[in-house]
Amino acid sequence: MSHTAKQPLEGIRVVDLTRVLSGPFCTMLLGDMGAEIIKIEPPQKGDVVRQQGGIRNGLSWYFAAFNRNKKSVELDLYEEGDKALLAEMIRTADVLVENFRPGVLERMGFGTDALKRLNPRLVTCAINGYGSTGPYADRPAFDFIAQAMSGFMSINGRADQEPLRSGQPITDLVAGLYAAFGVVNALRARDANGEGQHVESAMLNGIVSFMAYLASEHLMTGELPARTGNDHPLVAPYGLFRARDGEVAVAPSNDVVLRRFMRAIDLESLLDDPRFDDNAKRFERRDELNALIDERMMGESQAFWIERLNGAGVPSGKVQNIAEALAHPQIAAQDMVIDVEHPGRGTVRMTGFPVKLSDTPCMVRMPAPELGAHNDEILEPLRRKMRQTA
Amino acid sequence: MSHTAKQPLEGIRVVDLTRVLSGPFCTMLLGDMGAEIIKIEPPQKGDVVRQQGGIRNGLSWYFAAFNRNKKSVELDLYEEGDKALLAEMIRTADVLVENFRPGVLERMGFGTDALKRLNPRLVTCAINGYGSTGPYADRPAFDFIAQAMSGFMSINGRADQEPLRSGQPITDLVAGLYAAFGVVNALRARDANGEGQHVESAMLNGIVSFMAYLASEHLMTGELPARTGNDHPLVAPYGLFRARDGEVAVAPSNDVVLRRFMRAIDLESLLDDPRFDDNAKRFERRDELNALIDERMMGESQAFWIERLNGAGVPSGKVQNIAEALAHPQIAAQDMVIDVEHPGRGTVRMTGFPVKLSDTPCMVRMPAPELGAHNDEILEPLRRKMRQTA
Repeated sequence: MSHTAKQPLEGIRVVDLTRVLSGPFCTMLLGDMGAEIIKIEPPQKGDVVRQQGGIRNGLSWYFAAFNRNKKSVELDLYEEGDKALLAEMIRTADVLVENFRPGVLERMGFGTDALKRLNPRLVTCAINGYGSTGPYADRPAFDFIAQAMSGFMSINGRADQEPLRSGQPITDLVAGLYAAFGVVNALRARDANGEGQHVESAMLNGIVSFMAYLASEHLMTGELPARTGNDHPLVAPYGLFRARDGEVAVAPSNDVVLRRFMRAIDLESLLDDPRFDDNAKRFERRDELNALIDERMMGESQAFWIERLNGAGVPSGKVQNIAEALAHPQIAAQDMVIDVEHPGRGTVRMTGFPVKLSDTPCMVRMPAPELGAHNDEILEPLRRKMRQTA
Repeated sequence: MSHTAKQPLEGIRVVDLTRVLSGPFCTMLLGDMGAEIIKIEPPQKGDVVRQQGGIRNGLSWYFAAFNRNKKSVELDLYEEGDKALLAEMIRTADVLVENFRPGVLERMGFGTDALKRLNPRLVTCAINGYGSTGPYADRPAFDFIAQAMSGFMSINGRADQEPLRSGQPITDLVAGLYAAFGVVNALRARDANGEGQHVESAMLNGIVSFMAYLASEHLMTGELPARTGNDHPLVAPYGLFRARDGEVAVAPSNDVVLRRFMRAIDLESLLDDPRFDDNAKRFERRDELNALIDERMMGESQAFWIERLNGAGVPSGKVQNIAEALAHPQIAAQDMVIDVEHPGRGTVRMTGFPVKLSDTPCMVRMPAPELGAHNDEILEPLRRKMRQTA
């Protein structure tokens, strides 16, 4: 490990015009990789997330988690002097990320052409709900609506009940992650050809691309995938089974693993039973088979089975709540919960870095900023330059 | 748009040792950005996904969708001659991606140190369930189990029922996308310092990082987030409402949007009603409020309300099934369903590119490969070189 190695995005300056979640998540990922993120916030108020969720010592932990490694500069984007400062900042930047509705930035005077004139090397990135073209481009977007429209909800939930949204704001996060991937690729293209370009990531597109085999099956057959709760739509046994003191999640994804599972619970003979000797039969008699498995597993504890099954090569685990998940020794070993000191606000706990780079790892170089904390540092050099060229 | 611009990863050669979903999704993303992906498959059999899902003209559409832009080379990684070929290939490569269980590749003779000796510029990427360190590193992993352990299931579903898995294989896809992001960053670091490094992306870590504000709230308060179905855990009204001919998803995320919503359905006066004049009251009397909204919305059609609400700036939409989603004009306008010609196998429909780059866009340069289609093209030059240096 070369300790002097620069982070992948060191030296990259990002003008961050994003608010709330999808955009700040994107720029957080870029900042974690070493980019300088200049978060532009409305004067006095700042990103609305500063007031959202639990607040301790005047600091929103939700804000703190999604805005680590960022600098904060207050600019009023409806005021001419501040817009001139933003233009000057854009001249010094490598990337601009925004998550306004399509057209909003252009009405502020910073459309794609204007940005290209200011800085031909600038990589611009728009994160939005539906993309900037098409009949729904102008609609206001929100995670729940993108989930609904994408088909995600139609396959999430139980067969006998209504479609369900994801408990996580999944379309915001997927769009933000795709955007970050797109920006780094655009930077790499610029390394080769010297030119910036425009990157776009839409919440609806991102979550649709996650339809995976469900999309493939539908596109081939025209059929609709079933909403099957925790049951696998095609394979049995699979899902949650009952041990003496709690449930055990088991995912035997193919015949080899299934045999290991049935052997580990001493029910291998059922695989030769004419009622259950192929997947079609097991699937049809799923309730009967699951009952036999539950009966056997009720004889031992959850921990016993999870240990035994994993030892036998059968993926298995416990349904953990968030407390159990975040306190788990594996999560600790992977540094997936970290403590960040916020001067005057105390220590904030947040989730860590999901991508591990051995030589140029992600790190917290600075905590989430106080509103306007970097006004002078960032704006003074710009003002000086503007006076010189005036 | 400079039509001669190279794609961001053009000239990057990826040795792809991955199978099934998380890994092939990662290398698909790299291939979409222009990298040469050499998919190494077991002789005769190939990736098991070649036999999974619906098959038409001998081709799995699931396989076709996740393996576009890849070349296929058959190598037996348990055979010395083939391992020597793989070693030679690694000398010519920029990236190696694998999704074996931790330790498996090392036992084949391709541990991190061996790879570094073969090629110090190689970026290696491991995608796995739990990460390569910690008490669970050696456990077999599977999407359903990672969902269970991460806390995802604990917040997905209805309050009065069991925790639910996501209908999408979400942890596979998130881990694959994070891995692709990590690889491009590592390539950019290599552009600067000349050295490869190791990238790791674990399914559990990725989905935990998606806990967003749910993690922040728990880490501050110690409390567990409620599982609330389609209701917002903190805000009312929000969710699915009943129009005459179907449901309407509405997400008024703040007071401004809420007022727009209530005005658009001619119930603005309720916001001054002492029963509903702040969020705490609305939340407590949610059932009563929702019933009043349903009563009003039952008077008009789904399409009427969705049009009116979006026009008023209120995010709103329909819960679409996959057929409706993939056939939607917005998805068409965004090229999110594409047709790819597979010689001898017909035209395969698949989801398109969720990240749009204006000048160096993602494209299908070649369809998913026949098993071993590129044996000669890739292996002959390696054999020649080995004969010369022998």
